[in-house]
Amino acid sequence: MTTKIIMDTDPGIDDAAAISVAINNPEIELELITTVAGNVTVDKTTKNAMKLVKFFNADIPVAGGAEQPLIKPFEDAARVHGESGMPGYDFGAEPTNIPVNNAVDVLYHTIMANDEPIVLVPTGSYTNIAVLLTEHPDVKTKIEKIVAMGGAIGMGNMTSAAEFNVFTDPHAAEILYKSGIPVVMVGLDVTMKALLTQSTLDTVKSLGKAGEMLGAIFNHYYEGNEGGIPMHDVNTLAYLLKPEMYKTIPYWIDVVTEGPANGETVADIRGAYHDGKTNAEVCVDIDADAFNAWFIEEVKKMNA
Amino acid sequence: MTTKIIMDTDPGIDDAAAISVAINNPEIELELITTVAGNVTVDKTTKNAMKLVKFFNADIPVAGGAEQPLIKPFEDAARVHGESGMPGYDFGAEPTNIPVNNAVDVLYHTIMANDEPIVLVPTGSYTNIAVLLTEHPDVKTKIEKIVAMGGAIGMGNMTSAAEFNVFTDPHAAEILYKSGIPVVMVGLDVTMKALLTQSTLDTVKSLGKAGEMLGAIFNHYYEGNEGGIPMHDVNTLAYLLKPEMYKTIPYWIDVVTEGPANGETVADIRGAYHDGKTNAEVCVDIDADAFNAWFIEEVKKMNA
Amino acid sequence: MTTKIIMDTDPGIDDAAAISVAINNPEIELELITTVAGNVTVDKTTKNAMKLVKFFNADIPVAGGAEQPLIKPFEDAARVHGESGMPGYDFGAEPTNIPVNNAVDVLYHTIMANDEPIVLVPTGSYTNIAVLLTEHPDVKTKIEKIVAMGGAIGMGNMTSAAEFNVFTDPHAAEILYKSGIPVVMVGLDVTMKALLTQSTLDTVKSLGKAGEMLGAIFNHYYEGNEGGIPMHDVNTLAYLLKPEMYKTIPYWIDVVTEGPANGETVADIRGAYHDGKTNAEVCVDIDADAFNAWFIEEVKKMNA
Amino acid sequence: MTTKIIMDTDPGIDDAAAISVAINNPEIELELITTVAGNVTVDKTTKNAMKLVKFFNADIPVAGGAEQPLIKPFEDAARVHGESGMPGYDFGAEPTNIPVNNAVDVLYHTIMANDEPIVLVPTGSYTNIAVLLTEHPDVKTKIEKIVAMGGAIGMGNMTSAAEFNVFTDPHAAEILYKSGIPVVMVGLDVTMKALLTQSTLDTVKSLGKAGEMLGAIFNHYYEGNEGGIPMHDVNTLAYLLKPEMYKTIPYWIDVVTEGPANGETVADIRGAYHDGKTNAEVCVDIDADAFNAWFIEEVKKMNA
Ligand SMILES: [Ca+2]
Ligand SMILES: [Ca+2]
Ligand SMILES: [Ca+2]
Ligand SMILES: [Ca+2]
Repeated sequence: MTTKIIMDTDPGIDDAAAISVAINNPEIELELITTVAGNVTVDKTTKNAMKLVKFFNADIPVAGGAEQPLIKPFEDAARVHGESGMPGYDFGAEPTNIPVNNAVDVLYHTIMANDEPIVLVPTGSYTNIAVLLTEHPDVKTKIEKIVAMGGAIGMGNMTSAAEFNVFTDPHAAEILYKSGIPVVMVGLDVTMKALLTQSTLDTVKSLGKAGEMLGAIFNHYYEGNEGGIPMHDVNTLAYLLKPEMYKTIPYWIDVVTEGPANGETVADIRGAYHDGKTNAEVCVDIDADAFNAWFIEEVKKMNA
Repeated sequence: MTTKIIMDTDPGIDDAAAISVAINNPEIELELITTVAGNVTVDKTTKNAMKLVKFFNADIPVAGGAEQPLIKPFEDAARVHGESGMPGYDFGAEPTNIPVNNAVDVLYHTIMANDEPIVLVPTGSYTNIAVLLTEHPDVKTKIEKIVAMGGAIGMGNMTSAAEFNVFTDPHAAEILYKSGIPVVMVGLDVTMKALLTQSTLDTVKSLGKAGEMLGAIFNHYYEGNEGGIPMHDVNTLAYLLKPEMYKTIPYWIDVVTEGPANGETVADIRGAYHDGKTNAEVCVDIDADAFNAWFIEEVKKMNA
Repeated sequence: MTTKIIMDTDPGIDDAAAISVAINNPEIELELITTVAGNVTVDKTTKNAMKLVKFFNADIPVAGGAEQPLIKPFEDAARVHGESGMPGYDFGAEPTNIPVNNAVDVLYHTIMANDEPIVLVPTGSYTNIAVLLTEHPDVKTKIEKIVAMGGAIGMGNMTSAAEFNVFTDPHAAEILYKSGIPVVMVGLDVTMKALLTQSTLDTVKSLGKAGEMLGAIFNHYYEGNEGGIPMHDVNTLAYLLKPEMYKTIPYWIDVVTEGPANGETVADIRGAYHDGKTNAEVCVDIDADAFNAWFIEEVKKMNA
Repeated sequence: MTTKIIMDTDPGIDDAAAISVAINNPEIELELITTVAGNVTVDKTTKNAMKLVKFFNADIPVAGGAEQPLIKPFEDAARVHGESGMPGYDFGAEPTNIPVNNAVDVLYHTIMANDEPIVLVPTGSYTNIAVLLTEHPDVKTKIEKIVAMGGAIGMGNMTSAAEFNVFTDPHAAEILYKSGIPVVMVGLDVTMKALLTQSTLDTVKSLGKAGEMLGAIFNHYYEGNEGGIPMHDVNTLAYLLKPEMYKTIPYWIDVVTEGPANGETVADIRGAYHDGKTNAEVCVDIDADAFNAWFIEEVKKMNA
């Protein structure tokens, strides 16, 4: 059986890898890609999503979304992802007819048109989803769950408290976590352990045109250490396809929206402050070796 | 010359009076009414807006908007406005075919379709506008200004700090005040002085079918004191039509979004904290006698 | 019967007037004056208190207190009170042997040495009292009540939200209002109405050496308008001596300690958020004419 | 050369171990022990400190301090440390003449009486130190540094954000970190790695009367996992005596004082928000084997 998903993304190198998996894995039916400002501006993340769809000759609509967060001023991460967001590979002519500002509409109509609830997979900040849930609360019954890259219950990467996606639009994250929709939090607690090793990277590069493309953009990723490079967003697909690689714990997650911890996801680890209720399944550990092996198999499935 | 406006409202007794003025004054061209939860739930505020349009045989579209605030849980004001929001007068059969969840779309397309920028007149909480500005930032160039009922730099009415509209959705108010669009803040500082006296109320009731309707719903307004009853939202129209009745001061307005002052509009009255910049023209005083006289003249213009 | 009080002050022109009343009114037994940074630095407020005690040949100990607020950085109000804090009158040689940093100790021992509970009268920020209550919670049983100048439930004077004393050290104010000790809040809601008229000022100046001194320092007060000048701190003594001049309402007061409303005192005016409990008697109105007449009588009692 | 220190503690099992090291190590001159509410109420933490001093026949003054935090309501940790705070060993008759509420005074006079600056070692919440610094800012020049157990830049233990000591009195922690005094932050980032193994615990129990006492109270410590038990406060002494066991990084630390991350210490890990300034040396890693070996050597030095 396949899982119908919609990705809301800001490619971004790790988003690109996640999208590549989603397009090519036969158990995943990727219905729509929407984009948001994040790693780079939304016009660039939209173009990048279109380039990937074209690269794989896929027939997946792309809709451009929020140019900026709900309230907090926008800061991009071009220092990590390069000016274009997906540098190092020549995808050919720049896309034209970039769709703008219609992501929320398209999300709404796509989700409502499905018979069965879909899975939302945000790998950028959650602005589009926050607007969708506020403008169209009836959509909630048609979303099975949200598997969201973002947050950290341990160490952040913007401050020691906050991870980039949630830091970028903490108010949107608050709306998401308070929505009542089941959330799987795929945060730095696992994505900083799921490092692609040099050996994996070497293998990937040798795996056809898709491997060549991914290898090329991975080369420009300014993150990682001697243990390897994180590929944060890919963990959302990994969780969907092989959840047994992850250890999760149900927690109540609150989002901090001001002060020095702005953008932090706080887990009530003792169950002391929310009457024992939980609103998220939080990924707290991962089998990194299995993750590397899985990723290589995914690249092998890619048809470019 | 006429002024093209769009009202975003939660009728509500004082909203009803404001809408009545807007529909009937020849200098105002009311292009659209959108609704939001506030005084009562959004299905009721939408019905109430439709009832008023029908009462005046006007040809003005009504679009239903946000069911709840962006983040803060919804609390209505039915204690002030009655269960229906507009009690005390029989408007005939209940409207059917209530438009739902399309206010942001209709706002966007209506505003963009105009050649000239319009004036937005919110008299409920600002959720629809916040979603509009986030989803469609290109709309900003087509909004001349926002004349918004809400806030207080002196005493509030929910706490000593916060006024109802801003208290209901403080995050939306923050988005509005940070949008860069010129805002005229029509808050409790003037609306609690612009009391309709008993004499005015008596006169209004005698002014035809419209006066009868307004008199009937005013009777059920649970606010006011021996000096008269406030008619908060009407001040937005009064400001647009007779700005000389108001004293205004330009201030920077910040909105408090948590803690005991949640929902307060804070003015930097010494110009000490925002490099001397201002983002709003704040109404700080009004000629209450002139306001009473003006309102009677407006009711005389009404054709029901 | 006399009331035993301790004043904790930052003279400051209006503090000076309040101290002058306290020293000379036979119904008040002023046991101790402690000082705090506020209008000017604490070395100056301490010297000013000593000058006043000497001016009236009184035998009242003065103890110097906090140099700065608990957490918030210190900003003085020398723009309002002049560089010295009490300009315009020559008090003779500068005091020497300025007591430093012993206010909390002296407060503790003075209060505990009394058989009966005393009344604390802070007219500066509440840092000393906050430290006292934290270090020596046993002192609470020996404090009958705190009659505190500070705060506003309507308009502030630092921002539209915050009054100077509470703004200067909001955390100390939070400690005071949460202490469980009965508080009478004498804030801008009354002190901006209790304006000393030009006629009162003229009379005061003619009332002997004390009137001459007060008239001289009032001349340098950079506040007020055509209606007269406020004499904020004097209202604490006025309340103690003639409470019938004030209208008060019991409210729960919360203090804002961060964000744009930092330093605001928020009243739960609808009794909606604290289970109907109250922690302060808030002065909301005053008979300004009676206040003027009362103040003239007080100056007449002064013996310099 | 010896290091003069003052410990401000809430024994507590790990505090007891830290105090035991400080009393017995010849390179440490322990001048004073002050106590604070924390693991248990302050009367108990004071008695516990007195029991330890007597157990080792040491001549070290003990002064009782704050009964509760500055602002946040007090919650103890008796669930972890037992009702007495130091269960499992019979220290003989209960101490009498418990000193109360004089910690700040004694701290001030002890520190000022030294020729050279001392090192402050808080292993409980920082209320006493916050009061000391506020009441007597002149003391700052006589404090060389503060080696403080508390905080976490990774995972907390009260929420995922906050560690117990800072969570207990976040405002005091904010005062400490903003004081300008150099701080060494010894937080959960190292104390949760410095686990005493079962082998170490077995050895300790065999090391004379002191080892027997420590072994007995360790038995009742309700923390730890298969890797061993943490002995948080002992790390402050370990850092002072063998700093080479710790990896530290200089960061600016902000303390969160409200909202869901209340009590968190946030490090500006990218140096992005404080002009590159730092206010703390943060312990981020430790050699756990060396720590175990060191602790055994310390117990061997103990003379009871
Ligand atoms: Ca991403
Ligand atoms: Ca309204
Ligand atoms: Ca004062
Ligand atoms: Ca401790």
